[in-house]
Amino acid sequence: MRATVYHGPRDMRVENVPDPKIEQPTDAVLRVSLACICGSDLWPYRGVQKMPDGARMGHELMGIVEEVGSEVKTMKKGDLVISPFVISDGTCEFCQKGLQTSCIHGSVWGGTENDGGQGEAVRTPWADGTLVVLPAEVKNDEAMLKKILPLTDVMGTGYHAALAAGVRPGGTAAIVGDGAVGLCGILAAKLMGAQEIIMVGHQEKRLKVAEQFGATKLVRKTGEEAVKEVQEMTKGGAEAVLECVGTQDSLNQSLGMARPGSYVGFVGVPTGKEINMLRMFMANVALRGGVAPVRAYLPKLLKHILNGTIDPSPVLDMSINLDDVPEGYVAMDNRKAIKVMVNPQA
Amino acid sequence: MRATVYHGPRDMRVENVPDPKIEQPTDAVLRVSLACICGSDLWPYRGVQKMPDGARMGHELMGIVEEVGSEVKTMKKGDLVISPFVISDGTCEFCQKGLQTSCIHGSVWGGTENDGGQGEAVRTPWADGTLVVLPAEVKNDEAMLKKILPLTDVMGTGYHAALAAGVRPGGTAAIVGDGAVGLCGILAAKLMGAQEIIMVGHQEKRLKVAEQFGATKLVRKTGEEAVKEVQEMTKGGAEAVLECVGTQDSLNQSLGMARPGSYVGFVGVPTGKEINMLRMFMANVALRGGVAPVRAYLPKLLKHILNGTIDPSPVLDMSINLDDVPEGYVAMDNRKAIKVMVNPQA
Repeated sequence: MRATVYHGPRDMRVENVPDPKIEQPTDAVLRVSLACICGSDLWPYRGVQKMPDGARMGHELMGIVEEVGSEVKTMKKGDLVISPFVISDGTCEFCQKGLQTSCIHGSVWGGTENDGGQGEAVRTPWADGTLVVLPAEVKNDEAMLKKILPLTDVMGTGYHAALAAGVRPGGTAAIVGDGAVGLCGILAAKLMGAQEIIMVGHQEKRLKVAEQFGATKLVRKTGEEAVKEVQEMTKGGAEAVLECVGTQDSLNQSLGMARPGSYVGFVGVPTGKEINMLRMFMANVALRGGVAPVRAYLPKLLKHILNGTIDPSPVLDMSINLDDVPEGYVAMDNRKAIKVMVNPQA
Repeated sequence: MRATVYHGPRDMRVENVPDPKIEQPTDAVLRVSLACICGSDLWPYRGVQKMPDGARMGHELMGIVEEVGSEVKTMKKGDLVISPFVISDGTCEFCQKGLQTSCIHGSVWGGTENDGGQGEAVRTPWADGTLVVLPAEVKNDEAMLKKILPLTDVMGTGYHAALAAGVRPGGTAAIVGDGAVGLCGILAAKLMGAQEIIMVGHQEKRLKVAEQFGATKLVRKTGEEAVKEVQEMTKGGAEAVLECVGTQDSLNQSLGMARPGSYVGFVGVPTGKEINMLRMFMANVALRGGVAPVRAYLPKLLKHILNGTIDPSPVLDMSINLDDVPEGYVAMDNRKAIKVMVNPQA
């Protein structure tokens, strides 16, 4: 089969690789129907994060079950399934608690250990714990599948940020970062009943989506000026701040925007670590979040998508086939695309 | 009157200063009955924290009301009252929420703005918001007063740490730091029903108090070795970690000891800011806490002391009169004393 392979910064190639097959009785092999390129894929692409030569790419996918191991119970050949970006056994202490990202048998799609979503097929370890079967009626509904696809990562991650930030009905939420996760954070904050949703971002195209998603105010400033503007418009800080970037600056901005006694929900992979502890201390602003246990939120958010409450599909503003994946990275790198959808069967 | 005045690192003097008097209708003047030296007083004492020459010292006190302003309603001349280390109006948004440390009219005892507890008398701004009247029957009960005095800071701060760490009945709590706050954290964790309480500390004298307070296990190692030991004895991390020191090392140790999905409750004034964000991110370990709104916990904890459920008085292991305050600082600095009690009327 063909799959996307990393060969160094700015060197993604679609190559022939061995076909996946069942190795463990808990495995399932999927033919990938749809996958995405993630903002976090850009870190190795840009050389900011190290990745070994030959690593497979892509951790957001849905697909058709081709074969299951003898112990797999919840799906059968022909089922359409969706996967979160983390593989988990579904049974350990942490999976039971809804923190599948700390699963004792957990791993992430791609890399050198697993197949990647940006390919024709994948072997899924712990299929019952990891995958969620989608209703048969959506199988050929392209528009609905595009709405569902963000549940693999960005929609669940935005939801995690909102939950960690403690968004409350009638409250004020500020969201730092207008990437796909930040935009999904707007949908999540709205779902939780936030009355005022402030988006702090800089890309006009994305800010349009922000307004479409329900942002009530836009802040285009940066650094301390953005903090000041949010402080002023909320008269003392937002009641919940969603940090959806991960840089040191955006973290400290978020801490500065948060109302005393509130939470910054952070979900951006942190690239800095020098944070304004004194701000946290003096104002009792907490920092909560991390890698999102998207699997925990998937069934609930799926219902909201199926019944039309939320529709994150506008974040997928570019669609390509497998051969064009390298161009997809370029488009995300230079911000031509918010997020790229890959159709490996096209 | 006489009061303790800061004149630079290791230069505390007891001097004549102007007598306090009512300045605002919301003021009360107190004759100080008992006060303490705080671990955080050691930061300016050691020159680690800057403080202007002439600043007043002491933020933990109880006293007898001598005079009240025309708007003071909850106390009268002759009442025995206790003060948390923060002055607060008792009516603003944050006071109403129990976050008096963020009071819009708030300030801390001592410094250049307020009188200090380590003196004969104080003017209390916002007396109704700040002070709590003690039952008349404890007025001459010296042993009981010594039990109540830690409610001015360390007992409430230990309680804040336990609350922020999310200690649960039947759960495991680890406490980093065997100072007065960490020791009070044991009492708080026990009060909240923790079954296993692990104290990470190094001073044998303090570890004895830790056992007396209810610590079930002691860890005498430091750094990564302490993390490893707690990880092993809890099979994957403590369910709640109370960070009661404030250094960068102790914060990162605490993050390392915390079970995935749990909270580090931090109450030590942070002196470092480079924290292990990647640990927080990967394990969804949250950092919650800050300067403790001791005023919020005072009435509740007072009941527990009056009915004998908790007794933090063993942390006050040295008692001095006002003239000996400079010696009290020396004793705390070289760890001869855990915490010093000052009797300005002796």
